[in-house]
Amino acid sequence: MEFHYPNGRKYTSQQKLIPKNKEKIISYGKRGMTLEEDLNDTNMYYLSNGTAVIHKKPTPIQIVQVDYQSRSTAVIKEAYFRQASTTDYNGVYKGKYIDFEAKETQSATSFPLRNFHEHQINHMKNVVSHNGIAFVILRFVSTDEVFLLESKDLFLFWERMENGGRKSIKKDEIISCGHRIEYGLHPRIDYLKVIQHLLLV
Amino acid sequence: MEFHYPNGRKYTSQQKLIPKNKEKIISYGKRGMTLEEDLNDTNMYYLSNGTAVIHKKPTPIQIVQVDYQSRSTAVIKEAYFRQASTTDYNGVYKGKYIDFEAKETQSATSFPLRNFHEHQINHMKNVVSHNGIAFVILRFVSTDEVFLLESKDLFLFWERMENGGRKSIKKDEIISCGHRIEYGLHPRIDYLKVIQHLLLV
Repeated sequence: MEFHYPNGRKYTSQQKLIPKNKEKIISYGKRGMTLEEDLNDTNMYYLSNGTAVIHKKPTPIQIVQVDYQSRSTAVIKEAYFRQASTTDYNGVYKGKYIDFEAKETQSATSFPLRNFHEHQINHMKNVVSHNGIAFVILRFVSTDEVFLLESKDLFLFWERMENGGRKSIKKDEIISCGHRIEYGLHPRIDYLKVIQHLLLV
Repeated sequence: MEFHYPNGRKYTSQQKLIPKNKEKIISYGKRGMTLEEDLNDTNMYYLSNGTAVIHKKPTPIQIVQVDYQSRSTAVIKEAYFRQASTTDYNGVYKGKYIDFEAKETQSATSFPLRNFHEHQINHMKNVVSHNGIAFVILRFVSTDEVFLLESKDLFLFWERMENGGRKSIKKDEIISCGHRIEYGLHPRIDYLKVIQHLLLV
């Protein structure tokens, strides 16, 4: 017999067979919140607190067919996900332009660079060339660790890959180059604290 | 007999009956390009020319049903248009955060304020409070005139409406408060020229 959770995911009794310690890690890692949810919550806190105006951009969609049932309602009947040409988040903090991408990995030892696309790297390079602030927020799901990596460091790892080097950033490299962000309650992921620190340095 | 153009719009012979002088105005007004297309073209020019990094945000969509036919393809089968909570365009110019909305009107004498939503006005107020640059680009379709109106002026007209005043901005008011942008070839709508001028003043 199979059960279906309201989220549509299949429930199988196999889940019960996960070893207890592994289950513990998973439940700690997930906390019921994705990195995106944590960041949206953080950005809402920044907005209501008067710290910054930063929003996630909508997912880019290629619309193919729309049913106009009436003047006010329109139902999209066929559409496709498009690849983003920029990063997901941007906004303004103390007059400065802020631009970043956020990604999670299941890997415990390294962060695969395939999480980023070449045009996103180029976009961040353009932002930096216009004196904007660009970075990435990386989350290791298994240990629930979050890091901010400045774009200049990301570019170096990207170039290493392009020159035939490894296709990922070692976790040790992220620990030494990046900035660890501890989880908080309000805001959950206080990445602007890091940016504030970097602006003052 | 009816023809269908590739854009899916119905062609009726009635179009032939439009008086010649009116037809002329329409064809000059449309030029085959919408304000959005002109601005996307302008932003692409700014990007490739190293002037600024400014993009239009994707249309916000509420996705209800997705068919995952295979690992790589996903078809959105049911989705709805959501109201935007911010403005459509943002980016960075000389380190400054740029944020604007672009709207067209068919009216020849005034610009209806219902083209904007209250949360867009609030968003622009937030942007300004964080030292970002916010404005709107307004186009009168019938005469193909384009104006940049600074957010501080838009806020005044918005407040006038909230205080029971008129629900639109008179064209004369836009001519005196706003900044006219003449069409060019490269870029088509050089709105950053106005911003550059305002930054220097």
